[in-house]
Amino acid sequence: MSTQLIPPEWAWEFHGHQCPFMPIGYRMGKLAMQYLGVEHEADHGFFIFPELGEGHPQTCMMDGMQVATGATYGKVLMAKTFYGKLAATFYHNKKGAVRFSLKPEFVDAMGKFEFFAYRKKGIEPSQIPLAVRQEVIKWVNEQPDQAIYKVEAKPVFTYTPPKGSFNKTKCSICGEYVFERYVRFKDGQPMCIPCSGFTESRLDGLKGIQ
Amino acid sequence: MSTQLIPPEWAWEFHGHQCPFMPIGYRMGKLAMQYLGVEHEADHGFFIFPELGEGHPQTCMMDGMQVATGATYGKVLMAKTFYGKLAATFYHNKKGAVRFSLKPEFVDAMGKFEFFAYRKKGIEPSQIPLAVRQEVIKWVNEQPDQAIYKVEAKPVFTYTPPKGSFNKTKCSICGEYVFERYVRFKDGQPMCIPCSGFTESRLDGLKGIQ
Repeated sequence: MSTQLIPPEWAWEFHGHQCPFMPIGYRMGKLAMQYLGVEHEADHGFFIFPELGEGHPQTCMMDGMQVATGATYGKVLMAKTFYGKLAATFYHNKKGAVRFSLKPEFVDAMGKFEFFAYRKKGIEPSQIPLAVRQEVIKWVNEQPDQAIYKVEAKPVFTYTPPKGSFNKTKCSICGEYVFERYVRFKDGQPMCIPCSGFTESRLDGLKGIQ
Repeated sequence: MSTQLIPPEWAWEFHGHQCPFMPIGYRMGKLAMQYLGVEHEADHGFFIFPELGEGHPQTCMMDGMQVATGATYGKVLMAKTFYGKLAATFYHNKKGAVRFSLKPEFVDAMGKFEFFAYRKKGIEPSQIPLAVRQEVIKWVNEQPDQAIYKVEAKPVFTYTPPKGSFNKTKCSICGEYVFERYVRFKDGQPMCIPCSGFTESRLDGLKGIQ
């Protein structure tokens, strides 16, 4: 029996190509929502911390997660941890957190499909024969949830997003607006980071992800 | 005359609420594609570096950019610079780069709409009366492109994404797969970053953004 948790048609349009990972992320997002008892996020209450990074494949999962949950990058609800792992922690401040990861046995079994032979040759997903793409997507859809996902409760996980502010200042050099948190001062004048030449630090309020 | 560069209906479903910034980002993305002569990105050739950060409003622009361009976060084609500015650089390795920013006069004029009075009181977009949201969206759509966007050619901009690798190793502690770039060694054993306790560094190949 195939999963009922299938991305809507427009999700493929959004993502840009057919691959197995967008639907794997979509289903992960839907299952996490069911686990936590949350609805599609209209505003800013539900966060996803995917453990993916860069310079490796299979990150397309994150587009499926965005589509499923409404916890989008644009709403600052998704941020990678850069661990290079096929996992994500889903967190709602009223409902708690859960971590989903792909089971290694599932990853190994999926890796035998012809789709990956093409990808390892450097062929982009949209250039792989449609039948080859559909074969692996169909197989993924036929696997039961528990064959794909390891699910871990994360009772101590917490995340506090940075306090928001509408205050902004014009950079004294380029004249563009800068939100207050990112204004720097140099020679006594407010500046944006690039005009100041000061490098940037990145922070998070992430605790208890593992 | 209203702009013709209007997000498809599903873009609102993806984003989760009605606000003026998703369509502002959508239009910015479409204009950047026209400027550079690129199509909706199916695979991994087109990058966006939004200068937005966190802890400030108006980041929803990035969801519109994702929808318009196919340069999605899931495909690792979008990464914030954390400058806290209402701007983005669009880069295609065969077509070059362009930077779009919101003109301060436009930001000031838009800020007078009732929508922002609600937002500054902490009311989430989906809870603002529909007529109030539609009023500002309609006004934005009626502004000509040149009233909204400053456009700058970026002839020296370049970006080299990290070289990809499919190699992965199982963490000797948790047993989960880790892509090679993120494997750490501790006590002679391969580990994932959280199991190793080693902190992560973040790099980029970003040059010439301003």
